[in-house]
Amino acid sequence: MPDIFPTIKRPTLLLDEKTARRNLHSMALRARQAGARFRPHFKTHQSAAIGEWFRDLEINAITVSSVDMAQYFARAGWQDILIAFPFNWREIDEVNQLASQIHLGLLVESRDTARFLNWHLNHPVDVWIKIDVGSQRTGLAWDDPEAVQALAADLQRGRQLRLRGLLTHAGHSYRARGAEEVCALHQQSMQRLTGLRDQLTQAGLPALEISIGDTPSCSLCDCTGADELRPGNFLFYDVQQSQIGSCQPADIAVAVACPVVALHPERNEAVVFGGAIHLSKDAFDLDGRPAYGLVCLPQPNGWGAPLPGAFVRGLSQEHGVLHLPEEDLARVRVGDLLCILPAHSCLTVTLMRSYLTLTGQVVPTMHSPE
Amino acid sequence: MPDIFPTIKRPTLLLDEKTARRNLHSMALRARQAGARFRPHFKTHQSAAIGEWFRDLEINAITVSSVDMAQYFARAGWQDILIAFPFNWREIDEVNQLASQIHLGLLVESRDTARFLNWHLNHPVDVWIKIDVGSQRTGLAWDDPEAVQALAADLQRGRQLRLRGLLTHAGHSYRARGAEEVCALHQQSMQRLTGLRDQLTQAGLPALEISIGDTPSCSLCDCTGADELRPGNFLFYDVQQSQIGSCQPADIAVAVACPVVALHPERNEAVVFGGAIHLSKDAFDLDGRPAYGLVCLPQPNGWGAPLPGAFVRGLSQEHGVLHLPEEDLARVRVGDLLCILPAHSCLTVTLMRSYLTLTGQVVPTMHSPE
Repeated sequence: MPDIFPTIKRPTLLLDEKTARRNLHSMALRARQAGARFRPHFKTHQSAAIGEWFRDLEINAITVSSVDMAQYFARAGWQDILIAFPFNWREIDEVNQLASQIHLGLLVESRDTARFLNWHLNHPVDVWIKIDVGSQRTGLAWDDPEAVQALAADLQRGRQLRLRGLLTHAGHSYRARGAEEVCALHQQSMQRLTGLRDQLTQAGLPALEISIGDTPSCSLCDCTGADELRPGNFLFYDVQQSQIGSCQPADIAVAVACPVVALHPERNEAVVFGGAIHLSKDAFDLDGRPAYGLVCLPQPNGWGAPLPGAFVRGLSQEHGVLHLPEEDLARVRVGDLLCILPAHSCLTVTLMRSYLTLTGQVVPTMHSPE
Repeated sequence: MPDIFPTIKRPTLLLDEKTARRNLHSMALRARQAGARFRPHFKTHQSAAIGEWFRDLEINAITVSSVDMAQYFARAGWQDILIAFPFNWREIDEVNQLASQIHLGLLVESRDTARFLNWHLNHPVDVWIKIDVGSQRTGLAWDDPEAVQALAADLQRGRQLRLRGLLTHAGHSYRARGAEEVCALHQQSMQRLTGLRDQLTQAGLPALEISIGDTPSCSLCDCTGADELRPGNFLFYDVQQSQIGSCQPADIAVAVACPVVALHPERNEAVVFGGAIHLSKDAFDLDGRPAYGLVCLPQPNGWGAPLPGAFVRGLSQEHGVLHLPEEDLARVRVGDLLCILPAHSCLTVTLMRSYLTLTGQVVPTMHSPE
């Protein structure tokens, strides 16, 4: 394997393909065991090249988070795409264009939007009703079946609309810690969704599918009962997921290699070229204070385990300020590289815009310069 | 003036050119009154086209935060560029290339780096010693004149190095509130820098210049005594600067126009298409909780004043969750646009990658797609 580190000059997003493919295989297997369709969320990797790894496993249905991401993956040959974001009226032309080309799925949570779609859609699409099972971001409340039923009725009136089911993202699972807590929340979500579905069936609606998507539940819990799983973050994981318990630190498949530009042994700190425009300002809680990444040493085959007690304590535009224990700091020189495991890999990928694999290949994303 | 809002489909970074030019004029005047060279930091706007506004005022010396930003502005014809980031050994080839073309300035804070530059530089550059006046990010401590003197001696030995002076970024002024507090910190910084300079002069060094750069001090305080001012954020300002008191909300010259995709009157919230990949996850403190932006209504000539009591309470990848008072929420419909004043404009500009002016012109940045 070539040593990639001597070639690295600037903050560079490293991708451990072997670990990512292992994460992918493992999740595909979990979905199969649960008897659910696997519709992975591509907002994490955002890369047509990495999408091919999924096709290797005969995965043909995907999730994206925006219309332009749907356009990018449609250009890459994906024919079954769900945009898991509330339909944005202002992109109706782009949605009509996509719906004329591929099997498209949309999310709806309001009757106004249902009416807008009924009026403006020129091609058939699948629609999913977004349900809030407790995350309080978007969706109709799980305990308001009348509202869901009224929306479903509007959607059924749409000539171009195929009502598919109830979709949720149990984002509150990100605040849980450990399999027991995550799976208790997951069970609650499933009970809320299946209960709602049963009420709707009794009210005369056809049987609706259930689609769930949070990486903690999909990584840790028995997802039997769901018709579709849409996790995304599982491909790379990150420090936030490792804190939840969805993965081990060794499962984290991306790291940002950052040049050391200053050492401050008097306060146990190193400063790297690698800031908020590389890692994002998303954070995790470390003993009550925010931290923006964990710190590893480069190794011939990638990077080592996180250095105990080391973390990114601050980020500004280009600077990362790292706390390092005395013995680690003593081994680091200006000009060295350190590898940072990001707090949140999806945001880091968006910012970094391309990957360097451990074998030295550059993998572009939808945001890469042409 | 054409109405730009009907054309907006996705999160769009609006630029109020008139307000930005007013901020620029005002800061250029303040620098002239202080008798200081104005070397504005271009990390805020990152745009060759906006750089031309500075040339209109006969500003010819600029600051950037990375080597690739220096390359970009050198290509745009800038001949005097200071990279205000500790020199990164791994970019020596790029730095040599730049130094062969333009008048280049570098920052140094360690003797190892001075020796590296002495060994590897092929073309003359200006060097500035980075001094920490209290921000605890990078730099040699202001109260350690022996360390500074030793570094200065190393730099003076460099054949290609022209030691120019002492440079600081008083980043701790971002935690101050109001002119009195900011200017007390500024006075302290200036006393520390001039005291250090005088000690070095007495020790036999030639007279060193003093370069300062934080937007709060440059906006609010008398900067007499500094040889050079390097503020950047002043061009657009943002909610963080308005909280410090560096500007009024009406001075904020950028806002992200975001389509409303969901309404939740039962908890006084609207959800917009506009998340952490558009605004950045930088935050400001709002009565003890983090907030990611203030909310304004579009107006024919731009946007109105921030809606009292309205703010961005949460961001995920593409979603922004806005708290809106009941009477404002009642006026908003799905499909409308809301304008978000960002917590930190520099990070938002990096993410958004281009601007739309209020007259409908697209202004690219160094990160715009080709």
